[in-house]
Amino acid sequence: MTRRALLVGGAAAAGTALLGTLPSLVQAQGSPTPSSVARQRPLGEPTSAISARSSFEQPARTPTGQVTGASLSPLQEFSGTITPTDLHFERHHSGVPSINPADYELLVHGLVDRPTVFTLADLKRLPSTTRTYFLECSGNGRTAYRSPKRELTPQLIDGLTSNAEWTGVPLTTVLSEIGVKPGAGWMLAEGGDAALLSRSIPLEKAMDDALLVYAQNGEALRPAAGYPVRLLLPGWEGNTNVKWLRRLKLIAQPNMSRDETSKYTDPLPNGTARQFSFVMDVKSIITYPAHPVRLGRHEWVQIAGIAWSGRGKVTRVDVSTDGGATWIAAELQKPILSKAHTRFTRMWRWTGEPATLLSRATDETGATQPTLVKFHEKRGQGTDYHFNHIRGWVVEQDGLVVYQVDA
Amino acid sequence: MTRRALLVGGAAAAGTALLGTLPSLVQAQGSPTPSSVARQRPLGEPTSAISARSSFEQPARTPTGQVTGASLSPLQEFSGTITPTDLHFERHHSGVPSINPADYELLVHGLVDRPTVFTLADLKRLPSTTRTYFLECSGNGRTAYRSPKRELTPQLIDGLTSNAEWTGVPLTTVLSEIGVKPGAGWMLAEGGDAALLSRSIPLEKAMDDALLVYAQNGEALRPAAGYPVRLLLPGWEGNTNVKWLRRLKLIAQPNMSRDETSKYTDPLPNGTARQFSFVMDVKSIITYPAHPVRLGRHEWVQIAGIAWSGRGKVTRVDVSTDGGATWIAAELQKPILSKAHTRFTRMWRWTGEPATLLSRATDETGATQPTLVKFHEKRGQGTDYHFNHIRGWVVEQDGLVVYQVDA
Repeated sequence: MTRRALLVGGAAAAGTALLGTLPSLVQAQGSPTPSSVARQRPLGEPTSAISARSSFEQPARTPTGQVTGASLSPLQEFSGTITPTDLHFERHHSGVPSINPADYELLVHGLVDRPTVFTLADLKRLPSTTRTYFLECSGNGRTAYRSPKRELTPQLIDGLTSNAEWTGVPLTTVLSEIGVKPGAGWMLAEGGDAALLSRSIPLEKAMDDALLVYAQNGEALRPAAGYPVRLLLPGWEGNTNVKWLRRLKLIAQPNMSRDETSKYTDPLPNGTARQFSFVMDVKSIITYPAHPVRLGRHEWVQIAGIAWSGRGKVTRVDVSTDGGATWIAAELQKPILSKAHTRFTRMWRWTGEPATLLSRATDETGATQPTLVKFHEKRGQGTDYHFNHIRGWVVEQDGLVVYQVDA
Repeated sequence: MTRRALLVGGAAAAGTALLGTLPSLVQAQGSPTPSSVARQRPLGEPTSAISARSSFEQPARTPTGQVTGASLSPLQEFSGTITPTDLHFERHHSGVPSINPADYELLVHGLVDRPTVFTLADLKRLPSTTRTYFLECSGNGRTAYRSPKRELTPQLIDGLTSNAEWTGVPLTTVLSEIGVKPGAGWMLAEGGDAALLSRSIPLEKAMDDALLVYAQNGEALRPAAGYPVRLLLPGWEGNTNVKWLRRLKLIAQPNMSRDETSKYTDPLPNGTARQFSFVMDVKSIITYPAHPVRLGRHEWVQIAGIAWSGRGKVTRVDVSTDGGATWIAAELQKPILSKAHTRFTRMWRWTGEPATLLSRATDETGATQPTLVKFHEKRGQGTDYHFNHIRGWVVEQDGLVVYQVDA
């Protein structure tokens, strides 16, 4: 282990004694004393029904469309792993419908023994479970891939991923209650928005870890998240997690709906296209330091970011500060949950020379992020989805951090 | 294992085949068909910077004071384990101060080698960690203990507990950077509110799992939660988790501040009082069904609630539906985290006869909740804090659920 590795590793561990022999994280200040205590401090604000944000903290999503479109999450403003519910990304094809929960119905039919309509109360009466999962739009990263610019921020690059604690009913419970007929191989899931977005889901996934969720981070789903009920397919591309869910139809073969033919297929360089590319691949992004942060010379920096994989747990994130010449393992925040955002950190001291910061995540299947060059070779320029190549940040001579345009 | 235990246990497990041979959770309906799809559905609401709640879902805290006081969390409206940030309980002694983060300073002094003032930027530069912990006011449950009423709800009984993902700096990192002098045994923590609330904390706790936190559920602390920085002492009574933290002074003996002499001591039946009763004992409450829910006869009910302990992980929650004559283990939602809310559930079918529902949590130290009678004997009627006795709900003949006044 090098002295440098020791330093960086040591600083990342709480309460290490190592730091005493190396440049301290804290500068000596002489003998400070308590600032004067005003003789009479004014009373503060009263108790309230809703705890509001500080006027000094007003994080916001970036909406990209008038009605249809997406709202990107401000990844660079987040700590930990939970995405604040009102800042979870949204993506919809025809606006957010307003649904009265008293009118809500979910029909489950097709190749089943007992076709059934579930009200919201019916679903809430069934055994529930709570699990933490990321959700990512399959088009996340497209702008940075197609039109890379130095001025891109984490929000503009990868703001279509978020992470939440979801509560709902395992779909297996519903399907085993109503009975699936032999011959059913797929399930059509249809949303209650004006677009009636629909996707065909392999029965295997429906019987694995799929949920019908009605709560997010402890509270009822918000309208933009599919209120009152959405399908949740852990690790699968966002659009398959059908919102405002109105119908599940058990079928023998894929439905070949508009949303899996004209959209959500991936053209390849050889002229063919991938279809049903459901799983979101292993991925990561450094969210600090990132554009438009400006670092101070010889400043300690906690490199921080998020990593995730639709195939299971993130097992390792390597960080490079020299454009990929050398890599060092980052600290992973525990508990590491399957198919969930995992925060990574690494202490680093910027010397004042230009540097290029990269992160590279690996998951429990052994899959790891490709370089941009390799991604280009394999997927071509025309693809619209599943951009999981390594992202980079360049620290310029003056400390300004910009997105790495040419890898 | 009895047939009844099998039924209840089976229903609580997802996708069980057991249910087919017992009264189904889902009623047969003939052959429902898709509801008519309007030829043209209106476009929904546009994309937005902040994702708002549905107009049909407006959870709120119950504020109990004009300026000083508390706001109780609506426990009965929550799913999962995370408390929505804007619904986390609050308790303060002189209102919520408004602090400009650019002006924020934390002085750490007293028996230390290098007294130091930290700005918010200084703290954010240090290695951070993220952990999920409950926070509970030591007076939580007082109303139900002193003035029990049939009409109390989970919010009014125990709404002064909440659970969040916290991010900040381990206090050990700060203390090892500035050096603790021999002779330091305690630490005075002082808040920046008008009350300058202060508590003496044993150094052992400060060097164990204490954090200086600046983020909650992914975002900056809200003012009512101590913005920009609070002390977090996992598992310890709420008031020791000093908000708007302005000063930490390493000292030899407890400071005997107002907040640990005139307040936050527990009178005992023998005329003495407990002081420094920091740890919150193991506890639980059923949040569904609870007042004012009215059950339907022969209705399947998912009994659900939360359990927690300041001493570590909850290992077991037993539920009784017959007032404590018999007990059955509830399902515990995984992952079970130390010093965090743990959700428990148990399927139950109400026969239509009066029933009394109880929950009893046990933690990894083997501690378990006492009955109300035992709690009375040990702690007397005059105590103000640490009410962890078993709570009960009575299901009356007509299905109305009321708080159990006489245990």
